[in-house]
Amino acid sequence: MSFRARHLLGIEHLAPDEIRTILDLADQYVDLNRRTIKRTDALAGMTQINMFFENSTRTQSSFELAGKRLGADVMNMSVAQSSVKKGETLIDTALTLNAMHPDLLVVRHGASGAVNLLASKVNCAVLNAGDGRHEHPTQALLDALTIRRAKGRIHRLTVAICGDIAHSRVARSNLILLGKMENRVRLIGPPTLMPAGVAEFGCEVYDDMAAGLQDADVVMMLRLQKERMDGGFIPSEREYFHRFGLDAEKLAHAKPDAIVMHPGPMNRGVEIDGTIADDINRSVIQEQVEMGVAVRMACMDLLARNLRAERGRAALETMV
Amino acid sequence: MSFRARHLLGIEHLAPDEIRTILDLADQYVDLNRRTIKRTDALAGMTQINMFFENSTRTQSSFELAGKRLGADVMNMSVAQSSVKKGETLIDTALTLNAMHPDLLVVRHGASGAVNLLASKVNCAVLNAGDGRHEHPTQALLDALTIRRAKGRIHRLTVAICGDIAHSRVARSNLILLGKMENRVRLIGPPTLMPAGVAEFGCEVYDDMAAGLQDADVVMMLRLQKERMDGGFIPSEREYFHRFGLDAEKLAHAKPDAIVMHPGPMNRGVEIDGTIADDINRSVIQEQVEMGVAVRMACMDLLARNLRAERGRAALETMV
Amino acid sequence: MSFRARHLLGIEHLAPDEIRTILDLADQYVDLNRRTIKRTDALAGMTQINMFFENSTRTQSSFELAGKRLGADVMNMSVAQSSVKKGETLIDTALTLNAMHPDLLVVRHGASGAVNLLASKVNCAVLNAGDGRHEHPTQALLDALTIRRAKGRIHRLTVAICGDIAHSRVARSNLILLGKMENRVRLIGPPTLMPAGVAEFGCEVYDDMAAGLQDADVVMMLRLQKERMDGGFIPSEREYFHRFGLDAEKLAHAKPDAIVMHPGPMNRGVEIDGTIADDINRSVIQEQVEMGVAVRMACMDLLARNLRAERGRAALETMV
Repeated sequence: MSFRARHLLGIEHLAPDEIRTILDLADQYVDLNRRTIKRTDALAGMTQINMFFENSTRTQSSFELAGKRLGADVMNMSVAQSSVKKGETLIDTALTLNAMHPDLLVVRHGASGAVNLLASKVNCAVLNAGDGRHEHPTQALLDALTIRRAKGRIHRLTVAICGDIAHSRVARSNLILLGKMENRVRLIGPPTLMPAGVAEFGCEVYDDMAAGLQDADVVMMLRLQKERMDGGFIPSEREYFHRFGLDAEKLAHAKPDAIVMHPGPMNRGVEIDGTIADDINRSVIQEQVEMGVAVRMACMDLLARNLRAERGRAALETMV
Repeated sequence: MSFRARHLLGIEHLAPDEIRTILDLADQYVDLNRRTIKRTDALAGMTQINMFFENSTRTQSSFELAGKRLGADVMNMSVAQSSVKKGETLIDTALTLNAMHPDLLVVRHGASGAVNLLASKVNCAVLNAGDGRHEHPTQALLDALTIRRAKGRIHRLTVAICGDIAHSRVARSNLILLGKMENRVRLIGPPTLMPAGVAEFGCEVYDDMAAGLQDADVVMMLRLQKERMDGGFIPSEREYFHRFGLDAEKLAHAKPDAIVMHPGPMNRGVEIDGTIADDINRSVIQEQVEMGVAVRMACMDLLARNLRAERGRAALETMV
Repeated sequence: MSFRARHLLGIEHLAPDEIRTILDLADQYVDLNRRTIKRTDALAGMTQINMFFENSTRTQSSFELAGKRLGADVMNMSVAQSSVKKGETLIDTALTLNAMHPDLLVVRHGASGAVNLLASKVNCAVLNAGDGRHEHPTQALLDALTIRRAKGRIHRLTVAICGDIAHSRVARSNLILLGKMENRVRLIGPPTLMPAGVAEFGCEVYDDMAAGLQDADVVMMLRLQKERMDGGFIPSEREYFHRFGLDAEKLAHAKPDAIVMHPGPMNRGVEIDGTIADDINRSVIQEQVEMGVAVRMACMDLLARNLRAERGRAALETMV
C-alpha cells in the first residue's frame, strides 16, 4: 500500500500511486450488486468529528454516513453557532477540539488554507472537505472513481470542465488530479468566470462550448456559485444557459459515449438541461454521490491505518 | 405476519390486519414494568435518515430514539439549511439521498403529497412523518396503541376529536384509522376550523362540546396550529378556550372512565385545562409519547423485514 | 464507592468524598500515554439526551463525546427550534422527554434553577450542564481534576479566580468546590463585576490583580460574558485588559510554578495575553478540555450505576 500521508489536505500532495490506492480501496466498498455500500468495523472505537464552518448538507452527510459505515463514533459540530461567534480564534478552536482527542477531523472552511493551518495544530488526521477556492480533494477523487468505473480507465481521456471555473475548488482539485493521471483537460466558461493563470496547469481554455466539447470523453458541469460572486459579473440565468448550459445540441459535439457529470446541487435549466441530467445513458450524476460515500470511506480507512501505525511506533519508542 | 408494504405513507393504505400487526409488535417493545422500551438489533447495519423539511423536535426525536433502540445508524439531515436553499428540486434531493443507499428514510414535509412523490423515486423504505394536511400515520398508530392499552380494544369505541380539524393531518389520519377499525368518530370544532367534505368519512360533526362529548370513551384534543392558519379566522385564545378548551365541566359529558389525549405540544389554558392534562386518572398524554417510540420501532422493524425479503428475492433472481 | 446521588445538579450537594470518587474515576479514563481517552461499554444500551436551551458547542460536544466513549446512544435535541417555541412549558417538555425513557439527561438552561425543576419531574438521571448564574458542576470538577494532576493535590492551595465573577456560574461552582476541599480562594475583578454576598463563601475579594495574585498556586481566568451583561457596566476591552487581563507582569506576582487556567472560549488580548495562554509551562487550558471529557464520563458512569441499582431494587420490590 502506497498511501503514507498523515492528512488529506489536497490532491496537490498526492502521487498518482496514492490516488490509485484510494480508488482501488473505494471500489472494494461498493457492493457488487450495487444496491448498497458495505459496512465494516475499520474505524470501531475511533472518533470522527465533522466541523463545517460553511454549511454543506450534502458533503457532511456523505462523510457522516462514510464514518458510520466504518463503525466510527461520529460527531457533527455546528460551528455556525459555536465558540467562533464568541470571539475564539480558529487556532483556539482547533486546539480545543484536539484536546478532546478525536481520531479524524473533517473540516470545511470558507477561507483557502484554513484547513491546512488547522491540520498543523492537531494530533489527529485531518480531511479537507473544501476550503475557500483552494481544494476539495474527496470531490476530485469521487469524480475520478466515477470516471474510471464508466470509462474503464482514468488516464488519456479528454475531460471538459465547464462553467464557473473561477469560484470552484471542485474544478481546481479535478484539474490537478486529472493532470497527474495524464488526461487532457479543457476548461470552458465565460472569460469573467475563468481565473487568471490557469494556463500553468497545462490545460486548454475555451469560451465556446461547441469547440471545447469537441470529442470529449467526459463532460463535467459545475454549479454556478452565486453565493461566492462578490460584486463581480453575474450573468442572467437565461443568457448563461443559452451560452454555457449543457443541452442535447451542445452535448452532440462530445464523443457519442461521453458521460455527463455534475457535483450538485444542480440548477436545472441554468447549468444543465433536465433531460440530460436524467438520461441514464449519459448522466452519472447519481453515481457520483454513491462513489462519494465509498471514496470517503477509503480515505478515512487509509488515514486511520496510518494513524494507528504512527501511534504504535510512538508507543514502542516510549517503551525503549 | 400480514404487513407487506414497501413504505408507510398513510393510514389510508393499511388494512385492519396490518394495523393490528403493527400494534401487536409495538406492544412487545414496551417493557412489562413500563420503566423502559426494549433495545434490539433488528436494524443493526442499516442506515436510517431523518429528513425534516419542517422542524419537529418531538417527532424527529421519537424516530431517532426508535432507530437507535433498534441498533440502526441514524443520521439527521437539517434540510432547512440544505441544498434545497441552493435551488435544488425535491426530486433531485431525493435522488441524491437515494444514491447514498439509506435503508429507511423518515420524511416530514410541509406539502401534502410530497412524501409520496419522494417515495416513488427511491429504493429504500419511506416513512411519512407528516406531510402538509394530508397524513401523519405513526401519530394515528401511536394513538391507537394508547387507546387499546387503556380501553382493552380499538373497535366499537366512541371517539371525539376536538379542535382545529381543518389544519390537522393528525385528525385526518386518526379519522381514517378509527373508521377502519369500526369505531364511532365525532368531530367537534368551530365551523371555521372544520374542513369541507368530512361527512364522506362517515363521522358526525358538532360545533358544541357538550353535545359532541356525550358518552365518549375517548376525548382527543388537537393543537391549535396558528402557524398553519394563513389569513383565515384566528379565534382569540380566551374565547377559544371558553367554547372548545377541555375543562372538567365539558369533560363531565363524556363517560366517567373516558380517557383524554393530546398529540402535543400542548397550549395549556387554550386547548386544555392544565388540571385535566395532569390528571393521571384521565390523561394518557405522557403514554402517547411513550407509545410513539414503540410504534415507530414496530413500523421500522416491519419495513426493514420487507426490505430484506425484497433484496433477498432480487439477489436470487440475479443468480438465476 | 461513596457517590450515591440520583442527579448531578450542583457542587453544592456533593460531599468531599463524592468529589474525590468522581476525580479518581475520571483519572482512570485518561490513558497513561495521554494520547487518548479510553473507550468502554459502561453505558451500552443506555440513552443519553443532550438538551441545550442555550447554545454551547464546546460543552455539548464534550458531553456527546463522553457519552459515545461510554457506548451510550446519544441524542442531541436542538431546543432552540423545538416545541418550546410552539408555546410548550418547560415542565411539559420535561415530561415529554421523560416519556421517551432516556437514562441520562444533560441540560443547559439560561435560568438559574431550571435544571433542578426539570430533575424533579423525571425518572432518569439529570446532569446540570450550566443553569443561569447558578451552577456548572462538571466545569468545577474538570478544573479540580486539572489542578490535582498539575499540583498533586486539590487541598490547601491558593486559587485566584479573576475577572467577570458576577455573571459566572463557573466561578460559583468552583468557589464552592474549592471551599469544600479546604483551599484558600481569592476573587479578583472590578467591583461592578463582583456579586454581592460573596463574603459568605469565606473568600477574599480584590480589585487589584497584583495584590490578589500574590503567591497564588492557581490562576483561574474567566471569560468576559458580554452576552450576559444586560444593560450594566461594560468595560472597554482595552481598559479591561490593562487592569485585569493576565499578562507576564501580573502573573509574576503568583508563585513561580503557578498554573494558568481558562474555561474557554478565550478572548485573547482581553482576559489573557496570547503568550501566556500558549505557554506550555504555565497554561493548562488544553488539559482542562481534555479532563472535561474524562470528568463527564466519570459523572455519567457513576449516575448510571446508581440508576441501575435503583432499578434493580424497584424490580425486586415488584416481585415481592
